[in-house]
Formats: sequence, C-alpha cells, structure tokens
Amino acid sequence: MAQQTFAIEDYLEQCRKQVDAELDRSISAASASERLQAAMRYSVLGGGKRIRPALCLAAARAVAGSETAATLPACALELVHAYSLIHDDLPAMDDDDLRRGRPTTHIAFDEATAILAGDALQTLAFRLLSDAPSLSDNQRIAMIRTLADASGHSGMVGGQAIDLESVGRQLTVAQLETMHRHKTGALIEASVRLGALTNPEITRDRTEALARFASALGLAFQVQDDLLDIEGDTEVIGKRQGSDAAREKPTYPALLGLDGARQRLSDLLGQCHQALEDFGPEAGPLIAMADYVVARTH
Amino acid sequence: MAQQTFAIEDYLEQCRKQVDAELDRSISAASASERLQAAMRYSVLGGGKRIRPALCLAAARAVAGSETAATLPACALELVHAYSLIHDDLPAMDDDDLRRGRPTTHIAFDEATAILAGDALQTLAFRLLSDAPSLSDNQRIAMIRTLADASGHSGMVGGQAIDLESVGRQLTVAQLETMHRHKTGALIEASVRLGALTNPEITRDRTEALARFASALGLAFQVQDDLLDIEGDTEVIGKRQGSDAAREKPTYPALLGLDGARQRLSDLLGQCHQALEDFGPEAGPLIAMADYVVARTH
Repeated sequence: MAQQTFAIEDYLEQCRKQVDAELDRSISAASASERLQAAMRYSVLGGGKRIRPALCLAAARAVAGSETAATLPACALELVHAYSLIHDDLPAMDDDDLRRGRPTTHIAFDEATAILAGDALQTLAFRLLSDAPSLSDNQRIAMIRTLADASGHSGMVGGQAIDLESVGRQLTVAQLETMHRHKTGALIEASVRLGALTNPEITRDRTEALARFASALGLAFQVQDDLLDIEGDTEVIGKRQGSDAAREKPTYPALLGLDGARQRLSDLLGQCHQALEDFGPEAGPLIAMADYVVARTH
Repeated sequence: MAQQTFAIEDYLEQCRKQVDAELDRSISAASASERLQAAMRYSVLGGGKRIRPALCLAAARAVAGSETAATLPACALELVHAYSLIHDDLPAMDDDDLRRGRPTTHIAFDEATAILAGDALQTLAFRLLSDAPSLSDNQRIAMIRTLADASGHSGMVGGQAIDLESVGRQLTVAQLETMHRHKTGALIEASVRLGALTNPEITRDRTEALARFASALGLAFQVQDDLLDIEGDTEVIGKRQGSDAAREKPTYPALLGLDGARQRLSDLLGQCHQALEDFGPEAGPLIAMADYVVARTH
C-alpha cells in the first residue's frame, strides 16, 4: 500500500512536469502586457497538484487513447481551474489571501490584474484546445464543447454562484451535492472526458463507465476537501484551515457529522472502483488517482 | 446622406433583432443559478448597438459568405464584448456605475455575481462557436482561434492591462494606438474576420483587404469614442461624460488636440473606404457600418 502511494506520487510528478512545460510555453507566447503575463504565470505555475491534468492523462491511457494528444487538453483543464481559483479568491468572492502556501494573485499583484489574469487564462484554455496537436478538428470541437459545458453557467461557474447563495443557509445533503457537482465535479468529470476523447473510437459503454467514475470521484474530492478543512493543518493544505466554518459554508461534515462524511467518502471510492471494473490494467493510473484523491492530506 | 444614415440604422436594427433572439435563446439554456442567469441576461440584453455582430454579418455578406452561418459567431462576439464591459466596470477596474443608461451589473446585482456573469459569458461565447450551424468543424476551429487570439492576453485583455498601466502616465500617440489596437481594435477586427470565415473559399487578397479595413475601423471607433467622451452628453452616450479625463486616461484629443483627433478620424475612415474599393456592392453594408461608427453620437 505504501508502495502504491509512492507510485502515484511519481506518476503525478511526471504529469506535472509534462504539463508545466507546456503551460510555461503557452503563457510565454506573445502578450500585450508583461505585468499581466507575470500574474498569469504566478497563478498557474506557482504549485498545485495538477490533479485535473493527471486525470486527463490517466483517462487517455485507460481508453488506449493518446497521452501525447491529451497533453494540451490537460493544460486547458488546469488553466480553467487556475482562473477559477484567482476569481474565487477575490475580495468580492471568498476574500482569501493565501493559496498554495503563497499570497493569492490579487495580493501579490492587484485586484484589477487578478481579474484580467483570470479572464485571459480562460481564453487561453480554449485557444489551446483549438490548437491541440494529434487530434482531428472534430475531436477538438468535442473537447471545447465539453470544457465549456463543464466550466460555464451550467457547470463550474454556476456552482460558484450556488455556493455564494448558500453561505449562511441550511442546505440539505442533496442541495450540497448539487452545488458540488457543478462547482468541482463538472471540471473533474470533464478532465476524464477530455482524456477519453483522445480515442475517437471509444464505445458508449466505456464513456458511460468513465462518467460514473468521474462523477463519484468529483464528489469524493469535495468530501475530502471538507474533511481537510476541519482536520488539516494550514501549513500543509496551503490555505487557511477552518476557513469554511469561519464563513459558515455548508460542508459534508456539518451535515453528516465527521463519521458520516468519512463513510460517504468510502462509499464514493467504492463507486469509483466499481465503475472501472471491466477496464484492463491500463486503467491502473486512473484508479490510483481516485485512491490518491481520497487519501491526500492537502 | 440622410437617407444612407437611415438605411444603416435599419440594417443595425435588423441585425440586433436577429442576434438578440439567439442571445436570448442561448442564455436561457439550462443554468445552475437563476441569479447568475439573470445577471447574464441583464448584461447582454439590456441595450447596446450590436456593432460587432453587425460587422460580422456585414463582412459575411461582403465576401458572399453566409449571413445565416454568421449569426452564432456574431453572438459570440457580443458575448465577449459584454463580458469585458462587466469586468471593466468593476470597482477594482474602472469603477463605473452607469452603462448603456442603466446601473452596471455589479450595481444592479453584486460584485461577486458580476464577476461570475462575466466569466460565464466568456465561456458561452466559445460554446456557441463550437456549435454554430452551417459551418464545418474546420471553420469553427478557425473562428475559435481567431476569437481567442483577439480577446485574450495577446488581444483585448492585454489591452485592458496596458490601459490600467497607462492611467496618469504620458503616452505617445504610438503607445496610445498600441493600447487601442489591443483593447478595442482586436475584437473589431475579429468581428470582420469571423464574418469572412463563413466563406471557406475566401482568397488571401480579400482577407488582407478586410484586415486593413477592420484595423482602420477599430482605431476610428476609439478616436470617436474619445471625442464623444468630451463632446457627448451623458444622457445620450449612456455613461458618464468626461469620465476619461476625470480618470486621467490618455486620449486622442489630449494628445492630438480636438482638430487633430478629428483629422485622424477622417484619415482612418478614408483608409476603410480604400481597403474595400475592389469589393462589389455586396460590401455596401460593411462600408456603411464604417460611416456609421465615425458619425455615431453615442
């Protein structure tokens, strides 16, 4: 078990290197403002576990697609994630001053630059997908649709809006899950879907199995995030511990209790494994990613 | 001349109806948050001249492309424009409380909702392009690339960053033009390019002529905007008159004097006409658009 944990950390590190090299290259392309570019670089390349890119690459491997072709899509997912964090941290939103153990972008630069850096990172995500090598235009278009649906008002941004409306309100577990399926789950699902789309011949059965996997994983990710906010250490998680409770945000532990939340996490991990049971050993990294997400300490 | 002005206003009105119907439909699709959706609708459908959509439709006609196929791309351009206005008006940016004669989005809703509405409108722009009917995937991809390059850190958002850095600074005319070519010009150019891309057989000569037209028009638009900020009436222009000067923003009249700015405007309009001199009568609406932009009073 210790060895498996070691292997997934190696895998994540390898994904991170591969993706960071491309992110660096794409942000370094011609920009109109050096300060804007510096803020984009600061926000994207200042750490982060690259879980979404790794899921995309692992999903490509699981369906015998192309990990090479999945590299730019993996970067696009990270860019959308990074832009959402910048905007989420703004004073008008969560007003966070610490992210990944460093000052948030609007603290390190200024609010206006942070807003623009987020905007430009979103644009860059779609630009990268439109140009991703080793894919047909048809595959690129399918990926752009998937990413847009997952990240716009029907997905991630919609979830952030629900989140804002939920502060200080009593939610049911079903309402909490609806929020998280949009806010975090949709982009996690899109990560797996984009990887799968690198195989143009993928069957409907496999696509649906991956969707079940990703859906359970997206919620598991959030349950673990909520648990870390209670159990974690500010220095390890890289953001203020207890910040959810301080903001009266609804969380799984608040609704289910600590034990109930841990049980929910365990059930969701079971669903992840079950969804991929018909896949061969090429799905190993994807399953290991699920185990990692649930066991992570930050 | 009065008759020509009347004709272009009819044309704009017809474009507005066609585009607004599609914008309404696309924003009405499934959203996770009613409040977010209301803010998107408020920002996009609350007036505006639809100059970019009309340029896109007129360019499609000028190259014997398809005005029907240009409709969703025209909407995508308006969505990017609308998102940029929402974010530009935020307190951390230009801090404007009035736009198109109504409270800006963050005043009518709140800052967080305004940030998210802008984000979601950008996403929706790319979603619409990925789905635009009567186009090949190759054309859709070309449009997505064009829109991303024009609106991201190498284009519009880059120009907004230069703008922020320029407040209170003495710019040369060349520096002012660089800022405007990014901030406003790039999206105006993209409007013409997207319309032209509806004809997959368009020649390089025609594409280049349209680019010259659009480049001159983009600057003309900004010169006229600067003149209106001095000469216009708050009630007619729909935003605070004199707001540029109040913010010590560099403008054409400040650098060239009022007469110099008017001369520059006239030269740019001449370049617009010259660029399209080899086009047939199908370029009439496009040329009329240039005349309109220069003569507009708001």
